[in-house]
Amino acid sequence: MKTFKVMEVKRSIFENNDRQADILRQRLKKDKVFLLNLMSSPGSGKTTTLMQTIQALKDEMRIGVMEADIDSDVDASKIATSGVKVIQLHTGGMCHLDADMTKQGLEGLGTNEIDLAILENVGNLVCPAEFDTGAVKNAMILSVPEGDDKPLKYPLMFSICDVLLVNKMDTLSVFDFDLKACEERVKKLNPNIKVIPISAKTGEGMEEWIIWLRKQVNEWKDR
Amino acid sequence: MKTFKVMEVKRSIFENNDRQADILRQRLKKDKVFLLNLMSSPGSGKTTTLMQTIQALKDEMRIGVMEADIDSDVDASKIATSGVKVIQLHTGGMCHLDADMTKQGLEGLGTNEIDLAILENVGNLVCPAEFDTGAVKNAMILSVPEGDDKPLKYPLMFSICDVLLVNKMDTLSVFDFDLKACEERVKKLNPNIKVIPISAKTGEGMEEWIIWLRKQVNEWKDR
Repeated sequence: MKTFKVMEVKRSIFENNDRQADILRQRLKKDKVFLLNLMSSPGSGKTTTLMQTIQALKDEMRIGVMEADIDSDVDASKIATSGVKVIQLHTGGMCHLDADMTKQGLEGLGTNEIDLAILENVGNLVCPAEFDTGAVKNAMILSVPEGDDKPLKYPLMFSICDVLLVNKMDTLSVFDFDLKACEERVKKLNPNIKVIPISAKTGEGMEEWIIWLRKQVNEWKDR
Repeated sequence: MKTFKVMEVKRSIFENNDRQADILRQRLKKDKVFLLNLMSSPGSGKTTTLMQTIQALKDEMRIGVMEADIDSDVDASKIATSGVKVIQLHTGGMCHLDADMTKQGLEGLGTNEIDLAILENVGNLVCPAEFDTGAVKNAMILSVPEGDDKPLKYPLMFSICDVLLVNKMDTLSVFDFDLKACEERVKKLNPNIKVIPISAKTGEGMEEWIIWLRKQVNEWKDR
């Protein structure tokens, strides 16, 4: 038996997505729900990182997860094994979520008794960067096998994120990936971004990420 | 000094992209130019695979390459070192190329005295699958680090391609990737697709890919 819902989110009817995103953020503030928008290429390790994040934080805060995909429910099935609330969102072929689609997802998930809602966006470095989802913070994952030149090729995504997790650091020896060069390229686009090298597989760097995320959630609730 | 042009391709004004794609294909047929549309996630190894493909074929056919990116010219710079004709296309933030943008690119590249034109599409598993570029054949690369579940999550891309190169096979030992399961998922979506495991780094499987591509180019010219 499935322990999660699958929901078809409808294409937004709103022309002004930024306005809808601001309204959603105000609502989240009132409800004391922190929304994290997690973005990356397909296969960079979003779901595995999320599983580790849930394990680290689920005893101290109530977590809900929205898995957005064109099709399938493999990610929601995996997340459901962690015991937290999860919903699979199908985007009807859409390559990103906007604020209204995110709102539909939050309503499907239910934000009562949730402190941290995480949106795993569609795997795509282009389109999701163009649409404010209403999230409090934007996080992205770049994995070592993808290469250190990605900030040059997808500058908008790196520009709008608050934190960059450089994942699969355990595979550094089998790929040509210059962490320092990558970080310099990212900081040139976005001087305030926090860069954290991690391996969701080995646990390397995960503590720094958890400390960062915990701090954001607590500040949002207290402010 | 740069040995290639950088061109801003304009958003298409045509409503019926499929019609424009058919017109472009007819034109390519008349001119005996084979156009390959190469698609994948960011960082799956499109450019490296392309470099090896050029090395293998450049003495027997005239090759031209269009590098489509949101920004930068790192890929065109790399391809230019191979000695073939290359042009960098900037998409103005667009997440894919359509047939008219491809036509603009081909005109910028110049198809006189070219047998094989290759379009390296924007790194994205979603949007490029929705737009026929006018290519004679569609190829995609999935790399081992991305995971064997990608056909489940991005079914359209796997459905529309004629050939799938499973790249970075040399890293199989450091990732959980089930080639057989992946191939079964792909064939379920697209029974006629040709699946070729390769490593553009070590050369594994490249011969089979080159044989396939050579055959397509020759058949297009002779037919």
